[in-house]
Amino acid sequence: MALLDENRLLPVDSATRRVARDLYDAVRDLPIVSPHGHTDPRWFAEDQPFPDPARLFVTPDHYVFRMLASQGVPLTDLGVPRVDGGPTETDGRRIWRLFAGHYHLFRGTPSRLWLDHAFQEVFGIDRRLGAETADWYYDHIADCLARPEFRPRALFKQFNIEAIATTEAATDDLRWHRMIRESGWDGRVITAYRPDGVIDPDMADFADNVALFGEQTGCDTTTWTGYLDAHRARRAFFIAHGATSSDHGHASARTEDLPQAEAAALFARALAGTCTAQEADAFRGQMLTEMARMSLDDGLVMQIHPGARRNHSDQVMATFGRDKGFDIPGRTDYVTALRPLLNAVGMRPDLTVILFTLDETSYARELAPLAGAWPCLRLGPAWWFHDSPEGMRRFREMTTETAGFYNTVGFNDDTRAFCSIPARHDVARRVDCAWLADLVMSGRLAADEAPEVAHDLACRLARHAYRL
Amino acid sequence: MALLDENRLLPVDSATRRVARDLYDAVRDLPIVSPHGHTDPRWFAEDQPFPDPARLFVTPDHYVFRMLASQGVPLTDLGVPRVDGGPTETDGRRIWRLFAGHYHLFRGTPSRLWLDHAFQEVFGIDRRLGAETADWYYDHIADCLARPEFRPRALFKQFNIEAIATTEAATDDLRWHRMIRESGWDGRVITAYRPDGVIDPDMADFADNVALFGEQTGCDTTTWTGYLDAHRARRAFFIAHGATSSDHGHASARTEDLPQAEAAALFARALAGTCTAQEADAFRGQMLTEMARMSLDDGLVMQIHPGARRNHSDQVMATFGRDKGFDIPGRTDYVTALRPLLNAVGMRPDLTVILFTLDETSYARELAPLAGAWPCLRLGPAWWFHDSPEGMRRFREMTTETAGFYNTVGFNDDTRAFCSIPARHDVARRVDCAWLADLVMSGRLAADEAPEVAHDLACRLARHAYRL
Amino acid sequence: MALLDENRLLPVDSATRRVARDLYDAVRDLPIVSPHGHTDPRWFAEDQPFPDPARLFVTPDHYVFRMLASQGVPLTDLGVPRVDGGPTETDGRRIWRLFAGHYHLFRGTPSRLWLDHAFQEVFGIDRRLGAETADWYYDHIADCLARPEFRPRALFKQFNIEAIATTEAATDDLRWHRMIRESGWDGRVITAYRPDGVIDPDMADFADNVALFGEQTGCDTTTWTGYLDAHRARRAFFIAHGATSSDHGHASARTEDLPQAEAAALFARALAGTCTAQEADAFRGQMLTEMARMSLDDGLVMQIHPGARRNHSDQVMATFGRDKGFDIPGRTDYVTALRPLLNAVGMRPDLTVILFTLDETSYARELAPLAGAWPCLRLGPAWWFHDSPEGMRRFREMTTETAGFYNTVGFNDDTRAFCSIPARHDVARRVDCAWLADLVMSGRLAADEAPEVAHDLACRLARHAYRL
Repeated sequence: MALLDENRLLPVDSATRRVARDLYDAVRDLPIVSPHGHTDPRWFAEDQPFPDPARLFVTPDHYVFRMLASQGVPLTDLGVPRVDGGPTETDGRRIWRLFAGHYHLFRGTPSRLWLDHAFQEVFGIDRRLGAETADWYYDHIADCLARPEFRPRALFKQFNIEAIATTEAATDDLRWHRMIRESGWDGRVITAYRPDGVIDPDMADFADNVALFGEQTGCDTTTWTGYLDAHRARRAFFIAHGATSSDHGHASARTEDLPQAEAAALFARALAGTCTAQEADAFRGQMLTEMARMSLDDGLVMQIHPGARRNHSDQVMATFGRDKGFDIPGRTDYVTALRPLLNAVGMRPDLTVILFTLDETSYARELAPLAGAWPCLRLGPAWWFHDSPEGMRRFREMTTETAGFYNTVGFNDDTRAFCSIPARHDVARRVDCAWLADLVMSGRLAADEAPEVAHDLACRLARHAYRL
Repeated sequence: MALLDENRLLPVDSATRRVARDLYDAVRDLPIVSPHGHTDPRWFAEDQPFPDPARLFVTPDHYVFRMLASQGVPLTDLGVPRVDGGPTETDGRRIWRLFAGHYHLFRGTPSRLWLDHAFQEVFGIDRRLGAETADWYYDHIADCLARPEFRPRALFKQFNIEAIATTEAATDDLRWHRMIRESGWDGRVITAYRPDGVIDPDMADFADNVALFGEQTGCDTTTWTGYLDAHRARRAFFIAHGATSSDHGHASARTEDLPQAEAAALFARALAGTCTAQEADAFRGQMLTEMARMSLDDGLVMQIHPGARRNHSDQVMATFGRDKGFDIPGRTDYVTALRPLLNAVGMRPDLTVILFTLDETSYARELAPLAGAWPCLRLGPAWWFHDSPEGMRRFREMTTETAGFYNTVGFNDDTRAFCSIPARHDVARRVDCAWLADLVMSGRLAADEAPEVAHDLACRLARHAYRL
Repeated sequence: MALLDENRLLPVDSATRRVARDLYDAVRDLPIVSPHGHTDPRWFAEDQPFPDPARLFVTPDHYVFRMLASQGVPLTDLGVPRVDGGPTETDGRRIWRLFAGHYHLFRGTPSRLWLDHAFQEVFGIDRRLGAETADWYYDHIADCLARPEFRPRALFKQFNIEAIATTEAATDDLRWHRMIRESGWDGRVITAYRPDGVIDPDMADFADNVALFGEQTGCDTTTWTGYLDAHRARRAFFIAHGATSSDHGHASARTEDLPQAEAAALFARALAGTCTAQEADAFRGQMLTEMARMSLDDGLVMQIHPGARRNHSDQVMATFGRDKGFDIPGRTDYVTALRPLLNAVGMRPDLTVILFTLDETSYARELAPLAGAWPCLRLGPAWWFHDSPEGMRRFREMTTETAGFYNTVGFNDDTRAFCSIPARHDVARRVDCAWLADLVMSGRLAADEAPEVAHDLACRLARHAYRL
C-alpha cells in the first residue's frame, strides 16, 4: 500500500490536474534551496547516525508532541527533556508506541503528510503507522538508521540539497560550521545571524550575552557605539561562515529610527536592566533599523519573523523550556510598525528585507501592498502554523494579485526535522503548481509563462532573494 | 418541483462528488446530537401545537426578520413584540405575505436553505415560496400544524433527535424540564447552565438576580464565598436536570485569576453597583476561571461564546428588546485573554473548555494553535453568522491543519427555530463530507479513514466532548 | 495569438462553466453603470486625443508604476511628475520600453488582465507585450490614439457607458462638467461630492479651503452654522451638475453625534488650527453624521471609503505627492465607529449609506451583519487592492450568506485608467457569474433565479443604490 497519493495536492479537476502535473514534473527534481531553517549543524559536522526513531521523529518535533499533549498525553511520556533534568521517558520504543497509538490525531494535518512522506520516501515503508504496526516501524527505522546511507551527510546528498542555512545566536562560536568547512565535505551548510539574545532586553541573560559579545569581538559593548561595532564584527564573522542573512524573531514588527543619543540612552538602560517594557520594545525596534543600516554595508539579507506570543503555558515553560509547542500567534501590525525603518532605508534597492507573518489577515491588507510598493521589501512564504497546503494556498491567493510573484522569495522549510525537508519542499512545489494551473485554466496566466514561474518559485527566487 | 437539490453542498467535480456522496449517505440518517441550542423546553413539556406559520417561521427568528428590516420593513409589520406591549402586527397571514413577498432577499443565504428544507422535508411542499404562493403556503402549513404528527414531541421523534440541550439562566426554575421528566416521555431534553445574569455586573438586574440566586440556594450571596457556593448549588440543580455543560456569553474572552481577596472586593463593588467598566470586565473574567475550577469538581463542560457587540441599535433595543438581529460581531482576542484561566487549570485533561468565535481571523491564528496545544481546549463549530456552508468550510480549512479533527466537537445547531434543526445538521454533514472528500481526492486523507472521521464529526465528537 | 482566454475567470469544471457561461453571455453586453470613479471630466469636455501610450497606460496609473518601483525602478524613470517640477522622464517611448521590459512582474495580477484586455479589445493587439514587442506596441497604440475613434467621447460610446461619475472636491468649480453639459453631447458624465478637503482639519490647506468654500457659497464659513449651510449650498450645486452621491475618504470609519455646541467648538478649533489629533478625528466623525443628515434632505447617497494609511513613504510624498502607490490599508473597525451615525439616522429607509473596506476581515464579521440589519446600509463592492478576481470572490463568499445580494450595490470600477473600465466591469461580471454558477451547481441558488441575480449585479443594483 502506498502511503502517499502520487497526485496529492494537485487539483481535482482532470484537465487542471494535467496542467499542474506537467508543471510539477518539471520542478519536482530541482535541487532544494533551503535558505532558512533550524537543522543542527553538528549533524553535518560529525555525521553520526541519528539515535533512534523516537528521537528522530517525536522528541525534537514540537508539531508532533504538542498534538499529543493537546489530547492529554504528558510531555514526559513522550521523552521531552525537563529543564531540571528530572525524569522523562527514555525508552524510545515506548515513546514510539504512544505516538503510533495516537497517529489518527494527525489526520488532515501537514504533519501527517510530512511523516508519511519520510516513512515512504526515506525509509521505504508501505504500511500505515498505528498501534499494530508500531513495533514493526520502530525496528525497521532503527535498522535503517544504523546504515551509512542514513547518516546526515548521505541524506543531505540524497535529498538533493543545494544549500541549507541553519540559524545561530550571535554569540554562537560556529564550531560545527567551522568543522564542516574544515572537513572538506562539499555540502553547502551555512549559518544565519540571529542576534535576538543580544538585542532583546527582556531576555533574562541579555546583559551576560552582551558581555560575552564584547569578549568575542574585542569591542566595548558597554557603550552604544561599541555595541554596534560588535554587531558589525560578528556579522562579518558569520559572513565568513557562509551567512547571507540575518534573522529577527521579535514579538512585534515595531521599528524605530531614534536619534543616536536617544538610542544610546535606551541601550544603557537596557544593559542596566532598568528598561520599562515600553522602552525594551522601542530598543528592539531601534535595533531592526540599525540592522537594516548594517545590511546596506555588508549585504546581509534581513528577515523579520514577528508575531509569536511565546511560552503561553507557564508550567510547560518552567518544566520543559522554550519551543515546546506553546507559542501562539497574535495579531500583528506592519503598516505603522515598519514605517520608521522603511522611511530610513526602505527606498534603497540594494537592501532586501524579507517579511514573514503569523497573522494571515496581514497578507492582502498590509504585506502585499507594502511589498508591492517599497523596493527593499519581499514577502517570505507561509510560515509555521501556515506552512501547510491550505496555508500556502491562502498565501498565494492573498498576495499574488497585489505583490505578484516577484516580490516573494520562494519556499523556506524552517524546520528542525531533517527528514521532513524533502516533504516540505515537495508540498510547496505541488501547491504552487496547483495554483499556477488554476491561474492558467482560468485565463489569468498564459500557459507558456507558467513553467518559468514554477521554476522561479521552486528555487530561483530563493537563490536570488537570499543571495545564494 | 423539488425545493432542494439532492446533491446540494456536495462537490461539483463528479469524482469528488461520488466520494462525498458515499460519505454522506453513511451519516445522513445518524441521530441528531444537539448539545447547544435555544429551543423552548416548554414545547416538549406541554406538547401543544405551534400557533401558526408566521409565529413558527418569522416572528421568533431573528435571522429572518432582520433581513427584511435591512430592506426597510418595520419590525412591527412582522409582528415582533414590543417591550411596551404596544401595537404590532398580529395577523399571521399578513406577516406571512410580507415575508413571502421578500423571499428573494434570502437568495444565497443559509436561511433559504434551512427554510426550503423545512418546507420540503417537514411540510412536504413542492413549490417555491413567493407572493403568488403565500396564501397557499400559509393554509398548507396551518393545516399541518393542527395535526398530531406536527406537535413538538412528534417532530422531535421524526427529527431523530438523540439528545437536545436547551439553555437556561442560572436563576431559571427549570419547571419545564421537570415537567418533561415527570411526564414519562422518553425524549432526552436537557438544560445547560447559563449564569451570565448573575455574573455580569453590567446587566441592569444583576443585583436582583444575585439576591434571587441566594434565595434559591439558601446561600448568603452577599458574600463572595456564599456567592460561589450558590453557583455550586445551582450547578448541581442543573446537573440534576440533565445539564452536562455551562455556557458563557461574554463580550470578550477575557479571563482573570486574581487573589481571592481581590475577587471578593470586586464582587462587593459589583453588588453595590459601583464597579467601573474595567472592574466589571475583570469580574466577568475572574468568574470564567471560577467556573472552570468548579467544572473540575462537578464535570460540567464549559462553553465560552464571546465576541458579540449586543444591541447595536438603541431604538431597536428600546422598542423590541434583546436578540432582535442587531448584535454585531467584533474583533476578539483569545491569546492574551485566556492566559489566566489556562495557566490556572488548562493543563488538566479532565477539564473541557469549548471555545467559539465570531471573529474568523482567530481560527488559524489563535484558536487552532491554542486547541492544538492545551489539553483542556476544544473548538466549537462555526457559530451564528458563520454557521453557513461557506462559514463551515472556512472553519475546517483554517483549523484542521493545526488542530486536526479531534480537537473539535462536531456540530451545534444553536437555534431557536425548531424546524431548522434537521436542516442545519444536514448542512453540517454535507459540508463536512464535501471537505473530507476534497481531502481524500487531494491525497490528504486516506479513503479508508474518511468514513470514520465523517461519523465522528456527525455525532461521536459531540457526544464525547459534551459527555452525553 | 489571443491575449485573453475567452473563458477566463469562469469555473474550470465543465458543467459549472456552462452554467456560468450562459449567465455571463446574458449580461456581458449590458451597459456599463459606473457610479464611482476618478476619470477626468476634462477628457469628455475637450474630447482631445490622449497624448501617448506611456501617458495613457503608465504615468497616471499607480497600480502600474508602483509595481515597477517595488522592484527598484525609480519613479522618475517612469515619468511620474515631481512636485517641484524637477526632472523626470519625458520620452514616452523610453518609459514604455521600461514598462514593457518589466511586464512579467504583472503575471497573476489583475493589472495584467486589465492591460491585456485594453490591448486586445480597445487596440486590437494580438501579441504579448515584452521587451521585443515594446516598440511595435508603442507605434501601434500611438497610431490609434491619433484617430478620431480613440478620442474620449468615441471610446465612451464604444465602451457602452450608460453613466459615469467622476469625483470632485467640494471646492471644485465643476467647469468641465458644465462644459460637457453645454456641449450638447449626450454622454452621461456626472460628478460626486467629495468634501474631504473642507472636512479634514489635518489637511494642510484646510483653513484656506474653508475660506474658499465661504466665497463660493456666500455663507459665513467662519461659523459652524454658516459652514453647514455652505455644505448644503455646495451639495445643491453638485446635484445641479448631476451628482447623486457624496464620497468620504477618511482614515477610519469613526462617526460622532455630538451636541451642536460641542461640534461648533470643535469646528472653531479646527479652523484655528488648534485641534489635537484626537479632536480632528472627532470632527471628521461628526461631519459624517452631518453629511448623513443632509442626505436625508437632499437625497445624496453617502459613500464611506475608510482605512487607507496614506503616503507611507515620506520621500515619495515629498518628491511626487499623493496617490503614488504608497497608500497602505490598515485594520478598520466599523462596529463601534459607525454606532453614533447609525443611532442618529440609521433606521431611516430613505437614507442610503454605502460602506467600503480595505480590511477584508470586516466583511463577514462586521459589514455583512451590519448591512443585514440596518435599513440605511449597503455594501460597496471589493475595493482597490481587493478589486481583483480573488478579492471579488472573497467579497461574495464572505458577505452573501449574511447580507444576501440585495444589500450590495453592484460594481464600482473606481479607476482613473479610462481604458481599464470595460476590462474591470467584465472581470466583475465574470467573477459574479462564476460565483452564481457555483451556487447553482451546489444547490444554493435555483437555476431559474440566477439570471435575474446576474442582471441585478451587472447593473440594476448600481442604478438603484446610486439613484441613477
